[in-house]
Amino acid sequence: MSSAIDLGKFSYVALPVRAIFGAGRAAELGAELERLGVRRAMLCTTPRGPERYRALISGLGPLAAGVFAGAEPHCPEPVVKAAIERFRALDADGAVAIGGGSTVGLGKWISAETGKPFVAVPTTLSGSEMTPILGVKVGAEKRTRRDPKALARTVIYDPALTLALPAHETATTGMNSLAHCVEALYPAEPNPVARLIALDGIRALFEGLPASVARPGDLAARSRALYGGFLGGLLVQLVGIGLHHKICHVLGGKFGAPHGETNSVMLAQVVAFNAPYMPEVMSDLRAATGGADPAAAIFDLAKRMGAPVSLEALGIDPEGLEAAARDAVAQTVSNPRPLDAAGVHALLREAWHGRRPS
Amino acid sequence: MSSAIDLGKFSYVALPVRAIFGAGRAAELGAELERLGVRRAMLCTTPRGPERYRALISGLGPLAAGVFAGAEPHCPEPVVKAAIERFRALDADGAVAIGGGSTVGLGKWISAETGKPFVAVPTTLSGSEMTPILGVKVGAEKRTRRDPKALARTVIYDPALTLALPAHETATTGMNSLAHCVEALYPAEPNPVARLIALDGIRALFEGLPASVARPGDLAARSRALYGGFLGGLLVQLVGIGLHHKICHVLGGKFGAPHGETNSVMLAQVVAFNAPYMPEVMSDLRAATGGADPAAAIFDLAKRMGAPVSLEALGIDPEGLEAAARDAVAQTVSNPRPLDAAGVHALLREAWHGRRPS
Repeated sequence: MSSAIDLGKFSYVALPVRAIFGAGRAAELGAELERLGVRRAMLCTTPRGPERYRALISGLGPLAAGVFAGAEPHCPEPVVKAAIERFRALDADGAVAIGGGSTVGLGKWISAETGKPFVAVPTTLSGSEMTPILGVKVGAEKRTRRDPKALARTVIYDPALTLALPAHETATTGMNSLAHCVEALYPAEPNPVARLIALDGIRALFEGLPASVARPGDLAARSRALYGGFLGGLLVQLVGIGLHHKICHVLGGKFGAPHGETNSVMLAQVVAFNAPYMPEVMSDLRAATGGADPAAAIFDLAKRMGAPVSLEALGIDPEGLEAAARDAVAQTVSNPRPLDAAGVHALLREAWHGRRPS
Repeated sequence: MSSAIDLGKFSYVALPVRAIFGAGRAAELGAELERLGVRRAMLCTTPRGPERYRALISGLGPLAAGVFAGAEPHCPEPVVKAAIERFRALDADGAVAIGGGSTVGLGKWISAETGKPFVAVPTTLSGSEMTPILGVKVGAEKRTRRDPKALARTVIYDPALTLALPAHETATTGMNSLAHCVEALYPAEPNPVARLIALDGIRALFEGLPASVARPGDLAARSRALYGGFLGGLLVQLVGIGLHHKICHVLGGKFGAPHGETNSVMLAQVVAFNAPYMPEVMSDLRAATGGADPAAAIFDLAKRMGAPVSLEALGIDPEGLEAAARDAVAQTVSNPRPLDAAGVHALLREAWHGRRPS
């Protein structure tokens, strides 16, 4: 693989990262909190979290000051407020987020609002734990902004924690990771280091995701998939997100469509939409996916894992797609193919039908 | 290229980086200083710097509070002290280092000691501008330590500034970069992201260095080489340094041997020394260097560029090698091949004679 990117001009802007990766390393959570000077941690998780991660939580002993088990998809504003209030009521001096993107989102809000550190222990492949992107759903609108204070101080990737992740969530959060890697190949400004990481992430996910779905207890497959999730998150931090993710955010806000599911539907369609305008990226993608048509390969990957491939399957009203297209175009800073609302509306209609790109 | 590293366990710990890369971008220096809130910058450079970078310095206008043009190889302690004193006397609120590793070292010391930001504008391939490693020569000893406060806040890579770098310095500081990349393939803890970056850096340097030496005015070649230097520096930050660099530091301290030159001599020998103990790394290196024997390929690269390949050529007294071997072993934390002073002494004797590895 050569560095195909023209080295004429690029920027590399990276935030501090401390990630530790390996099966069983969730046991190092207490040591990581102590390293950060945290003595009273509030644990954030979903309603099922306290049962699912009981051993991990009880292993913290007195370091665990309390649990907030109210994480919900897309971080609705009232949930965010409740988590911060509980954090203050507990007089906690740090947070731990154990779960997927929605749980990690609470850790980020607590850290951004209180200035206290948080440790992320991701149990899905959303990659959110690597980014400084704060998201909240206010009414029907998903709002996001970057805030360096929202960064996790330590991220513990323990593939053993993902063994219990159901096939559907493995596939859908995995398609989100894959989208992070794919979109990192055509950011507003080229980034040759991001390209290297993105191609390795795509290879890892194309191998690790279907293997994890086929053999849920295969730790090597889980590890490969989680590695791809980590790289995807790192890429969002390095180069940001593009049209694909903006569409997913708009659909999440407007229709309450779950983020992983919209990623699963949209990625193949957005790659097909952009393909004629990014021949070098398509050449990279062919090498990394092993497919003659990367958009079709992505579509097939989602379908093979039983993840959704049409917006219709997500129950989205096709009447709302025109307005969604306008919003997505308004929010997207750069894209290989020039954007207009009619073009993106046509793209969304393809995605609604779930036609295989060809 | 697959991810050959066993994903059993790894860490990824990265410091913040802001690097901008591209021919002509040194013109953005003033804007970067303003971005950091700097109003009175002290410029650090070598005695020849004020003449060589006159346009760049004068372009800063009133942002340039003064120039310290006393940078010397290995950052001798009196020079470091003089630079900090001058910085304080000027009442400067930020520093700019324009030059190679020794000049960048002064920027680091100023930043670490005063807490004021510094911008690095590297004109060689040393990679020092990407690392938090503070170096100083006290008497005959080169001391180094990591200090996050020593990090450049912005690094401006302008390949046009390297067009005037003489062939000898291009080759020797380039061999230093190459060593950063090669040593990143076998750190104390495996790092799959560092591996990706290292292999791209090795490819870039194997292409860009000989082309830059053969055609000094070839901006594309200079750009490729400087990109390799950037990646090498990034890798030192991500995974640190190993036996090879410890040897170079010991030889630099004991014999005053210039850092780039010792790198040029030692890298092939250290790779040959470790080769039987790191078959996967050698396989990676074969792919990246295009040579059947990577140690020989590295030796040939140095020789082809007219860079030194023997310690004898550096005027090093062979009587001192035994003590140097002991020091290097004492300072090296991990190495693929188990280390003892006798083994490293034999390695240094090979390097003294400059025998081509086979």
